[in-house]
Amino acid sequence: MNAHKLNLTQLQAIIDRSSFNRWLGMQALAIDHESVTLGIQWRDELISSPERQSTHGGVIAALVDCCADYVIAAQIGRPVPTIDLHIDYHKAARPGNLTATARITHLGSSMGVASVLVNDVHSQLIASGRGMYWVATH
Amino acid sequence: MNAHKLNLTQLQAIIDRSSFNRWLGMQALAIDHESVTLGIQWRDELISSPERQSTHGGVIAALVDCCADYVIAAQIGRPVPTIDLHIDYHKAARPGNLTATARITHLGSSMGVASVLVNDVHSQLIASGRGMYWVATH
Amino acid sequence: MNAHKLNLTQLQAIIDRSSFNRWLGMQALAIDHESVTLGIQWRDELISSPERQSTHGGVIAALVDCCADYVIAAQIGRPVPTIDLHIDYHKAARPGNLTATARITHLGSSMGVASVLVNDVHSQLIASGRGMYWVATH
Amino acid sequence: MNAHKLNLTQLQAIIDRSSFNRWLGMQALAIDHESVTLGIQWRDELISSPERQSTHGGVIAALVDCCADYVIAAQIGRPVPTIDLHIDYHKAARPGNLTATARITHLGSSMGVASVLVNDVHSQLIASGRGMYWVATH
Repeated sequence: MNAHKLNLTQLQAIIDRSSFNRWLGMQALAIDHESVTLGIQWRDELISSPERQSTHGGVIAALVDCCADYVIAAQIGRPVPTIDLHIDYHKAARPGNLTATARITHLGSSMGVASVLVNDVHSQLIASGRGMYWVATH
Repeated sequence: MNAHKLNLTQLQAIIDRSSFNRWLGMQALAIDHESVTLGIQWRDELISSPERQSTHGGVIAALVDCCADYVIAAQIGRPVPTIDLHIDYHKAARPGNLTATARITHLGSSMGVASVLVNDVHSQLIASGRGMYWVATH
Repeated sequence: MNAHKLNLTQLQAIIDRSSFNRWLGMQALAIDHESVTLGIQWRDELISSPERQSTHGGVIAALVDCCADYVIAAQIGRPVPTIDLHIDYHKAARPGNLTATARITHLGSSMGVASVLVNDVHSQLIASGRGMYWVATH
Repeated sequence: MNAHKLNLTQLQAIIDRSSFNRWLGMQALAIDHESVTLGIQWRDELISSPERQSTHGGVIAALVDCCADYVIAAQIGRPVPTIDLHIDYHKAARPGNLTATARITHLGSSMGVASVLVNDVHSQLIASGRGMYWVATH
């Protein structure tokens, strides 16, 4: 890996270009040459079931997709279109903030793949996943 | 497949139990013994890029997850926890309403799998995917 | 979809170019403008467990990959490199021949996706899956 | 993670119970409390294309599936049924031995997920993937 081309302020600016990300309250927490960490603050509007108060699977999917996308963006300098996305849901996400950390698995000339771990405030693994992105400029 | 156990009104009530689904404006459009169709009305808050105005991949993921979940719910009478989710993004979703239709691929005693097609207002395929769900009661 | 560009004899010739396919005994059973059907004859060398005599998951993965690949090959006239592959295993594959049928989900200018159903001799669904392929010539 | 419950000789014995694994020539190369490494020696019968001499995607899928399965087996003492499998193919596998290393992502009471990296003899990443396995005894 080369040095990352985005700092935390630049990453937050990319995140905030999406009105959906802003609504989710997505925060850039850390960026270095090999990983990106994002956070989402829990709130009532993000839940799927009123009894379990668990965060909606689609919110977790959005977090996985963005985190994987931005760890590649950190290498190439711009966000990239998602080709496909896979998410494994390991535990129901109870009320509380979520943190996702992405690392690059493979960065080729046409496509890149990154993997993501999503943890709750107790450092319990809630979900894991991987996204594939289009990195070629043609 | 047996007859479906939910009608459109009951399905909309299940959808509306989730505050995130309500925020997405998710609508139950059709339900029968083999498929469920959901819709999301496009609005500015759902986009990922201000230039392309494309619907956020996480919104599409939420739509795929719910649609697959509810076609299984239609058979067993209740929504089910997601085990894992895969989404292929075929085209950028331009401004406009999205429609997703799910069909059951396999319904076993422990797990069920359903596949989903997501179309735009021009009946162009935007995304496809499949979700696996926990259907056992133990 | 356009008319398919391969007939059954041509498809079998493509299959047989791979020494691994020949060892698997992979047979082209049907091809038309929207689907391809392949078969594998069960034999003792393909099993994963001597007690259950079930066909190895890797053999089923090979069958899914080839079937999805060739339904795209039927449209564009040549086999295509696999980008990624997902397989859901629904039941243990008991001794007996397996049949896989693939249909195209989406065929774009760079990538194509096809979905596959794998059945046993009793028409029970053993596995399902989907593969993504590189179809661009550049 | 607990201490692993299988040593290298025991793991090779589990591998060799499958006639397909024996035909692939699958070797247990390393096992410890957090990872399992397997190898396959390249030979002409494993290729998909006679021109490119690349290892068949189904062979790589079998290697990913077994490696992920056995890193969970190392924790619980027995091989486990595959629920689903995802493989990303990053480069064509040129002639030469392949090595796969699996690590556990999550081990729950019903299901476990492990991730796998597949490298060629030049330590180039050829493929990556993840498998989900049924670990409950009921």
